[in-house]
Amino acid sequence: MTFKEIIAKLPYAKPFLFVDEILEVNENGISGTYTFDKNHDFYKGHFKNNPVTPGVILTESMAQIGLVSFGIYLMNESGESIDEIQIALTSSEIDFYKPIFPGEKVIVKSQKEYFRFNKLKCKVEMFNLNEELVCRGKIAGMIATKKLK
Amino acid sequence: MTFKEIIAKLPYAKPFLFVDEILEVNENGISGTYTFDKNHDFYKGHFKNNPVTPGVILTESMAQIGLVSFGIYLMNESGESIDEIQIALTSSEIDFYKPIFPGEKVIVKSQKEYFRFNKLKCKVEMFNLNEELVCRGKIAGMIATKKLK
Amino acid sequence: MTFKEIIAKLPYAKPFLFVDEILEVNENGISGTYTFDKNHDFYKGHFKNNPVTPGVILTESMAQIGLVSFGIYLMNESGESIDEIQIALTSSEIDFYKPIFPGEKVIVKSQKEYFRFNKLKCKVEMFNLNEELVCRGKIAGMIATKKLK
Amino acid sequence: MTFKEIIAKLPYAKPFLFVDEILEVNENGISGTYTFDKNHDFYKGHFKNNPVTPGVILTESMAQIGLVSFGIYLMNESGESIDEIQIALTSSEIDFYKPIFPGEKVIVKSQKEYFRFNKLKCKVEMFNLNEELVCRGKIAGMIATKKLK
Amino acid sequence: MTFKEIIAKLPYAKPFLFVDEILEVNENGISGTYTFDKNHDFYKGHFKNNPVTPGVILTESMAQIGLVSFGIYLMNESGESIDEIQIALTSSEIDFYKPIFPGEKVIVKSQKEYFRFNKLKCKVEMFNLNEELVCRGKIAGMIATKKLK
Amino acid sequence: MTFKEIIAKLPYAKPFLFVDEILEVNENGISGTYTFDKNHDFYKGHFKNNPVTPGVILTESMAQIGLVSFGIYLMNESGESIDEIQIALTSSEIDFYKPIFPGEKVIVKSQKEYFRFNKLKCKVEMFNLNEELVCRGKIAGMIATKKLK
Repeated sequence: MTFKEIIAKLPYAKPFLFVDEILEVNENGISGTYTFDKNHDFYKGHFKNNPVTPGVILTESMAQIGLVSFGIYLMNESGESIDEIQIALTSSEIDFYKPIFPGEKVIVKSQKEYFRFNKLKCKVEMFNLNEELVCRGKIAGMIATKKLK
Repeated sequence: MTFKEIIAKLPYAKPFLFVDEILEVNENGISGTYTFDKNHDFYKGHFKNNPVTPGVILTESMAQIGLVSFGIYLMNESGESIDEIQIALTSSEIDFYKPIFPGEKVIVKSQKEYFRFNKLKCKVEMFNLNEELVCRGKIAGMIATKKLK
Repeated sequence: MTFKEIIAKLPYAKPFLFVDEILEVNENGISGTYTFDKNHDFYKGHFKNNPVTPGVILTESMAQIGLVSFGIYLMNESGESIDEIQIALTSSEIDFYKPIFPGEKVIVKSQKEYFRFNKLKCKVEMFNLNEELVCRGKIAGMIATKKLK
Repeated sequence: MTFKEIIAKLPYAKPFLFVDEILEVNENGISGTYTFDKNHDFYKGHFKNNPVTPGVILTESMAQIGLVSFGIYLMNESGESIDEIQIALTSSEIDFYKPIFPGEKVIVKSQKEYFRFNKLKCKVEMFNLNEELVCRGKIAGMIATKKLK
Repeated sequence: MTFKEIIAKLPYAKPFLFVDEILEVNENGISGTYTFDKNHDFYKGHFKNNPVTPGVILTESMAQIGLVSFGIYLMNESGESIDEIQIALTSSEIDFYKPIFPGEKVIVKSQKEYFRFNKLKCKVEMFNLNEELVCRGKIAGMIATKKLK
Repeated sequence: MTFKEIIAKLPYAKPFLFVDEILEVNENGISGTYTFDKNHDFYKGHFKNNPVTPGVILTESMAQIGLVSFGIYLMNESGESIDEIQIALTSSEIDFYKPIFPGEKVIVKSQKEYFRFNKLKCKVEMFNLNEELVCRGKIAGMIATKKLK
């Protein structure tokens, strides 16, 4: 499965897609990048006259790369269908260390804690281009092709 | 300080403002509501053909009501200036239980854990109109009128 | 659904059934009892010449009453089939305070933390007949009627 | 002290003995194995027509190898008597990842967190013969030659 | 056992005694007070020209009232000897919210988490005379009349 | 900045100074030593006729070396003023493994978890001269040159 095929299977679309490329993926983890477009609508409101990427949007980018892209790979590897992927975030636990400004590029690294009964839990980290830690934590979600309930 | 004055001091603007009204606030906690407008841009991408409010946007609404609106009240009560409020999220730890669909109204309740050295940490909960728990956790952030660094 | 119907649906049989009766059950929690039969085989080996109920067997009784019996009730209430229930323990976190000797009766009380995507997590406590806390903790498991994988 | 001498000092007997051999032991940790006999009585009841090793029995095997066998070694090394060893489990905190079926062999690895005032706490892991992680966590217990109370 | 008898059995002496009086004690918890004498030697060095009670001394006062005085009461109630009490702190986990200045009086409240195998663990809180929370956390220690090792 | 210059900037004075020398310091961590003078006043009272270094004083030594000396270095490196340093302990979470007797020398090692908004949080460990772990945990505090409030 190529990196582009993984991204094509993501259930997200613009303007809520926060993955540009996958750099590496295997059984144990994944890494990828995203560049925050200066024209994102949320910069108009976060904050008034002072655009900074919201911490929750950093979290979303970590989840889309570190959890969902990774989960699609893992499901495909284990022979499951990856058409019509359903996602539900079940928990996030993140510490924030550095701000990310409009136009900055980030690298997300994720390591599998476990994947069982359609639940994937990962340790995730985001770095800026100076290799400084931006945020770090754990994200868990359900990933399935059937209707989640 | 009226509820409207609190909201007027929030450093957010549309489309990244997720507070409609404050219901109650005192030394120990705050509650407020928000109705997710069906026309939010993020529904176009989360998910493709299947609009559901992103978990990170639920988190942001909990932070704007439970942490930032509350912090503005607490700072004002203790006699500090609340002009040009600066905010930085430092940690979030959330479990998600129920989805919120476009157009749904939610109630956020927040209780102070501590507020010291410009850091406010709270326990927050979000409920839907059936009084079902939507998500719950802890959020902490820096809140100050001087430049944060 | 009667208490006896719940017990009849349990996927356990002797000698690994550690539920005698359900005392109460509703949307939020369950309580039930079990009396440890002096003739249980494990007393021969735990310990040599010194029979005490193994902590892990106390844990199993808490799980069968507090998680599995409760989960059968919750699934039935929400209209799901409860034929051919499948169970998998996913985590347990227990502190032990008092020993239980052969022949002692215990009461288990369990409160729901959440039930979503077939995963049920509960806070559980066990008491002896002097109302002393025997052990306490959290147990989580998957409960479904389809094959778990 | 030979590996066989450690096993001979264990306070357990069949059918509640879940240690076959010690592979290695030193000041910092221990490893050992156990093969789950298909004829164990508990398979008749866990589950009806569907024998799987109970999670609590996996926990017991981790405790007998990783905590009690290890504690006997540590007490003997420090010059304490190891006749008439008394054991009491004080806490367990385990996550379960893979099922173990009748007849499967497992390897348990344990690392000392601390041993003080007769309390031993360890990090323990269990693997199957494919080197897949079966379960993992922390177990603590009291180990003494005098009567524990 | 009177409150004064409890204090008389404490293994501490000046200048490292941080208990003035016990206000209440029963099976589940204890409360007591201490007034920080302005002449304590540590104020000379903490800090240079700026005397504030060190956080670790607040912790010590919480431990002497909330753990050791309480433990003496619990041991006496259960019929154990309380002559020549031996103490060893095993863990502390404290968050600090307000400073305490020379001459201030504090109230400590402690609740038992468990007392078993000579280990007592408590939830403790300290308040100032304005009923504001000063610090809060958990403290555990061994308490015995025999030599601890 | 030399090791001696760091110690000269510490806001502590005798008898509440528990740092003798810095051994090493860089962006990520620090190590240093302290020898507990037999004549410390606290040995008179902790315990009666049985002098042992109080656990809270071990904690203080870990904080003065691992947090405050380290913070002075980090602030100086980033170009901030280090005159009139203000300190406030915000949390400590320590496990104790070995006693330290009057006259013993200890080595403290500390690693940065994060330093942001004037808050420094570190993992700290103390060893005796036999390289045995004495205590270990996490300490966090505010460090600033302006008045903390």
